[in-house]
Amino acid sequence: MIGGGRGAFIGGVHRIAAIMDGQAELVAGAFSSDPERSRASGADLHLEAGRVYGSYAEMAEQEAAQPADRRLDFVVIVTPNHQHFGPAKAFLEAGFHVICDKPVTFDLAQARKLKAIVARTGKLFVLTHNYTGNAMVKQAREFVRAGRLGTLRKVVVEYPQGWLADAIEQTGQKQAAWRTDPKRSGAAGCMGDIGTHAENLARYITGLEIAELCADLTTFVKGRALDDDGNVLLRFTGGAKGVLHASQICVGDENNLNIRVYGTKAALEWYQEHPNELIVKYPDQPRQVWRRGNGYDGAAAQRATRIPAGHPEGYLEAFGNIYREAFRGIRAVLDGQKLPKDLDVPTIDDGVEGMAFIEAVVRSSARGARWVTLKR
Amino acid sequence: MIGGGRGAFIGGVHRIAAIMDGQAELVAGAFSSDPERSRASGADLHLEAGRVYGSYAEMAEQEAAQPADRRLDFVVIVTPNHQHFGPAKAFLEAGFHVICDKPVTFDLAQARKLKAIVARTGKLFVLTHNYTGNAMVKQAREFVRAGRLGTLRKVVVEYPQGWLADAIEQTGQKQAAWRTDPKRSGAAGCMGDIGTHAENLARYITGLEIAELCADLTTFVKGRALDDDGNVLLRFTGGAKGVLHASQICVGDENNLNIRVYGTKAALEWYQEHPNELIVKYPDQPRQVWRRGNGYDGAAAQRATRIPAGHPEGYLEAFGNIYREAFRGIRAVLDGQKLPKDLDVPTIDDGVEGMAFIEAVVRSSARGARWVTLKR
Amino acid sequence: MIGGGRGAFIGGVHRIAAIMDGQAELVAGAFSSDPERSRASGADLHLEAGRVYGSYAEMAEQEAAQPADRRLDFVVIVTPNHQHFGPAKAFLEAGFHVICDKPVTFDLAQARKLKAIVARTGKLFVLTHNYTGNAMVKQAREFVRAGRLGTLRKVVVEYPQGWLADAIEQTGQKQAAWRTDPKRSGAAGCMGDIGTHAENLARYITGLEIAELCADLTTFVKGRALDDDGNVLLRFTGGAKGVLHASQICVGDENNLNIRVYGTKAALEWYQEHPNELIVKYPDQPRQVWRRGNGYDGAAAQRATRIPAGHPEGYLEAFGNIYREAFRGIRAVLDGQKLPKDLDVPTIDDGVEGMAFIEAVVRSSARGARWVTLKR
Amino acid sequence: MIGGGRGAFIGGVHRIAAIMDGQAELVAGAFSSDPERSRASGADLHLEAGRVYGSYAEMAEQEAAQPADRRLDFVVIVTPNHQHFGPAKAFLEAGFHVICDKPVTFDLAQARKLKAIVARTGKLFVLTHNYTGNAMVKQAREFVRAGRLGTLRKVVVEYPQGWLADAIEQTGQKQAAWRTDPKRSGAAGCMGDIGTHAENLARYITGLEIAELCADLTTFVKGRALDDDGNVLLRFTGGAKGVLHASQICVGDENNLNIRVYGTKAALEWYQEHPNELIVKYPDQPRQVWRRGNGYDGAAAQRATRIPAGHPEGYLEAFGNIYREAFRGIRAVLDGQKLPKDLDVPTIDDGVEGMAFIEAVVRSSARGARWVTLKR
Repeated sequence: MIGGGRGAFIGGVHRIAAIMDGQAELVAGAFSSDPERSRASGADLHLEAGRVYGSYAEMAEQEAAQPADRRLDFVVIVTPNHQHFGPAKAFLEAGFHVICDKPVTFDLAQARKLKAIVARTGKLFVLTHNYTGNAMVKQAREFVRAGRLGTLRKVVVEYPQGWLADAIEQTGQKQAAWRTDPKRSGAAGCMGDIGTHAENLARYITGLEIAELCADLTTFVKGRALDDDGNVLLRFTGGAKGVLHASQICVGDENNLNIRVYGTKAALEWYQEHPNELIVKYPDQPRQVWRRGNGYDGAAAQRATRIPAGHPEGYLEAFGNIYREAFRGIRAVLDGQKLPKDLDVPTIDDGVEGMAFIEAVVRSSARGARWVTLKR
Repeated sequence: MIGGGRGAFIGGVHRIAAIMDGQAELVAGAFSSDPERSRASGADLHLEAGRVYGSYAEMAEQEAAQPADRRLDFVVIVTPNHQHFGPAKAFLEAGFHVICDKPVTFDLAQARKLKAIVARTGKLFVLTHNYTGNAMVKQAREFVRAGRLGTLRKVVVEYPQGWLADAIEQTGQKQAAWRTDPKRSGAAGCMGDIGTHAENLARYITGLEIAELCADLTTFVKGRALDDDGNVLLRFTGGAKGVLHASQICVGDENNLNIRVYGTKAALEWYQEHPNELIVKYPDQPRQVWRRGNGYDGAAAQRATRIPAGHPEGYLEAFGNIYREAFRGIRAVLDGQKLPKDLDVPTIDDGVEGMAFIEAVVRSSARGARWVTLKR
Repeated sequence: MIGGGRGAFIGGVHRIAAIMDGQAELVAGAFSSDPERSRASGADLHLEAGRVYGSYAEMAEQEAAQPADRRLDFVVIVTPNHQHFGPAKAFLEAGFHVICDKPVTFDLAQARKLKAIVARTGKLFVLTHNYTGNAMVKQAREFVRAGRLGTLRKVVVEYPQGWLADAIEQTGQKQAAWRTDPKRSGAAGCMGDIGTHAENLARYITGLEIAELCADLTTFVKGRALDDDGNVLLRFTGGAKGVLHASQICVGDENNLNIRVYGTKAALEWYQEHPNELIVKYPDQPRQVWRRGNGYDGAAAQRATRIPAGHPEGYLEAFGNIYREAFRGIRAVLDGQKLPKDLDVPTIDDGVEGMAFIEAVVRSSARGARWVTLKR
Repeated sequence: MIGGGRGAFIGGVHRIAAIMDGQAELVAGAFSSDPERSRASGADLHLEAGRVYGSYAEMAEQEAAQPADRRLDFVVIVTPNHQHFGPAKAFLEAGFHVICDKPVTFDLAQARKLKAIVARTGKLFVLTHNYTGNAMVKQAREFVRAGRLGTLRKVVVEYPQGWLADAIEQTGQKQAAWRTDPKRSGAAGCMGDIGTHAENLARYITGLEIAELCADLTTFVKGRALDDDGNVLLRFTGGAKGVLHASQICVGDENNLNIRVYGTKAALEWYQEHPNELIVKYPDQPRQVWRRGNGYDGAAAQRATRIPAGHPEGYLEAFGNIYREAFRGIRAVLDGQKLPKDLDVPTIDDGVEGMAFIEAVVRSSARGARWVTLKR
């Protein structure tokens, strides 16, 4: 694991998600760019001292030299955005599969470069757009793919949070500090951190491609350099329209990612805070509530399920599903097979698309919220 | 009553709303521009045949000549949009108070003219933006006014419906026919019919003025002349931002008007389909659910309440609240007093604002969804 | 109208419910047993002074003598329970149809007598178990009748309120005073006031007959003479089981009547505080949410609907549906026809059943909560 | 681990719950009484073949002989009820801490014996009443303990499931087979399996003791030997009343455990299927929704939380909380300290209480649903 030392949030999430099915074990890490801190974190996690490193470069070099029976199967990158590309490149080139937090890189150019590296090395690169790991999100995608919604017309995707409504980055809150810092987060704040989740979720479910967008980004909190709120109009290839808005200043909202998709025949609603349900609406039939863990759910949703209906799964299980599917891929490669064709993980392509989205919303907003096309 | 004959929807709603408190009685009407149909409708409603008219002009003339003890106190206009201005002018000038359905006129120019007529005649003109009649909407306004939300930052207001997802106007559905006809509805379809409700609700609660907007209107149903969907970015005077979207092609949605208002200190949520509740969110306190009919509710919400908590009130009661408050005004005038200063009814000013909104969204969209300022 | 003077609650509800469809007008009343108060109330309601009476007996006598064109079509009784029987008898015998609030009488013996009087006079007697007026309650009944639930196994019906959690009857609260007074309310407090609504709702939807019950009634508030809480186990004829609990000490609950019915094939849920929805659950299919005002709803639900889907109807509209259906019956009789066979109003039989329920729960509880059979 | 082999449900849950925080590792097991099956299951789980046993007795003996650095810290028992006592006794006496699924034993006599063994051996015995591991359940308990609800008056606790609505035990469904078999499940079916969870949840939150109860148990499915539904009236020491009902024939219900607690000052509601929220109701204030992961939550809820607000935790995390707290105790003992005084795990006392509850409901029901007191 790269990053995820003391005081980090997402590192702990990745660790639970990775081990929950008993398929993986944490054995090495460079948990911080501060070697002292890295060592302390490694000790917290009961790692062998010799496999705790002061830098990812050191780790890549030394772990590549491990004998086969001690060799890492994959590396997880959970650093701030500006430190994704370096370790990803290093480990891919050192022959390791990589699981990386989102957004994939600091900027679009890096993402494109990384795409080339992934292609060249032939290693598996998995981007943890964890919300697509939810069983009912997979069910939603299956509905769209099966044509059950008819032709898609409108998508509304929201991601309001409230935790950055005040300038907590100035009070030493580590999570807030790097996310609001353009040197570490990239060109966007809110839009990079969670806007990309919304973009990814919409694309995962609908398969629609954003043709052009008009983004009005705002920085509400004084002294902050990056956007903490954004409202975006979307036009998809093929004629569907959309609204995407995300915010970190919506006080009282916690992590309210949600999506509504309207087609000519039916519509879907899914709420991340109530992830075990998928609402389906029809023009001329009662609404349906599809629930995780039932025999009537489709194959994709059933595979992404650990426990029976009514026993709520949550954020960690969805995150774990990304890992579980990544492991399926890694195991296939270890077994000398090709990657399963139906492997259902977010890839470097999702990463590039996300960075193109960030680049476009920032560009649109900088021009006064004019329509721009995405550069892919 | 002008309009509201056989086959109409909103006429029946107005009749229930007007009489439910036992304060008004229907005694005369021109229910259709087809005299035969008007007469039949009058008979359905058990009216004296002599007070059922074939045209509003005839009615205005003859009713103005009624003796004092038979004289109408007010007239209700429930015709399609293109037939609001004529009767409103006629009855105001004939000395009657007028209660009129929304949007106020066919276009902005008419609205401005009507404003002048209202001013000149000194009669009460009430526009039935009925959703503002809900008790918990009034509570929401009271919160904002009391500063409980702090400085407002973001408003999200939605009005998705699904009933026009197919071209039912071509099958003889009367409600659909006039709403999709530019000659009767005006320059906008969905945005005029329900977008204005969303605009009005947001303004009523927040008191914010839209400075500029960017509207992407769409006509999804083939052969339809007016928009049946619209996504609008809002910038309010003072720096708040907003999203307004309305649709008539959101299959499975019924009448899902809702609003979220975020301030620096707290946030509000209200859903028209669950009107008896108002959700209040705080950055650092548990969420609250304020419910109609409780002693803790503010004065405005309590006045807009007929029955105890837990006994749900709905659309008709909210509509009736507009009437009840209008009657308070009319009664004051009848009693020779001035209009109460705190009279809480939508006025011709709301009508002008709504028409300015329609004009702006149509103009913006016609330019490819560019930012425009409102012409007031 | 008998009762319903100043300070009353349910009188006002009946007036709105009766007039909302423009089919009835209030023309006479004995609003209080205090003639002064009755007169004042009549004046509030703009009644002709000559038709406001100091007692129901006086009113029955004089109104019976009115000429045909001024004759009352029906009388509404909204007094406390101990004053139902007297006026009901008087007006039925004077030839008037009667609409009466619930529970039907002071005790079971009176209810049986009244049943005989109704039978003898041949007049329509309608008991306002208003919750059965809800469209989605009618839909629920239709599902059961159509066998859609299979064989019924279990019924859970709840009616928690919190307004009597303190001894507000000692502070002059009029509604509380009579409901907690055995001389006016009868043998039961909570169980008579709202337990009977729960019993009636369960019977209306399921058609099941309570064979025996075991009731544990409690008076939680010191100094109160009647039960303010009760938990009841039910055994229905045919083998279904049930739980009924009602309370007036459930702080924070408003008027939370709700019911769940489980059959071998499907189950239903309905919540009075969200009356426009009916939840249907299946063992092997997604849940459904049936909503009022849709084309897919059954005939009974559609008839009990005034406005389109998504425009919430509430307590008053459901109450108005009882009146509307009663008027259909009265109109038929006035037109010299028989009562419609499908007339869907609560009758004196429902009243007797409710009183038998009250008698049984009180008897069971008095014996230490032992099983008792109902005396019908 | 004892039990939990191929085809089991709860074994997998325990494994995830135990390892999710990286504090435990599965190293040995007797996964089935069929040695072949046990071996196969051990292989599935990548265990060392030498530590997979054909019986718990063999395992207890051999594992007790392991050297200190390979010694088990604790044993988990996830067999059907009739096989709890044997291994619990064996491992406690062999010096291991034990974590055991519920209900604790086959009958009350065994539970009492086990209590004595626990006392004698001084080992930690933790019963996995997992629902009490939920953060908001802990918050609920904290409210009650802090007197925030005032004096408790009424408790309603429900546990409806629908999965046994048909005789699936006759189709080879393993979970159903043992739960409906009196030889393996004990004297109760539904009441033992889930009624005890309801009883335990109510006791955990309220601290109230059931003084007497009246239980009407039913077997709805033909050919089944044990109850599949039960309705129970409760009287608590001190005067509070309650209703507890549980069922496995409530079609369409999944795992709908929920509880409402009413005091003189406030009331609580918690729903297992939406575990991240706790609803608090007041007589004279807006309702509150307390949500997991917020700074305003109490210390107990905060300790039982892994990820931030709005990132839903579920069943597995709650289960994991039981383990995490058990590990805190085990670690203290390993470190030579006493058990923490505030150790918050279900104990053998909870197990005895649960068995006393089962014994009482069966006894009451056998007598025709008469009131009985609990034998403790």
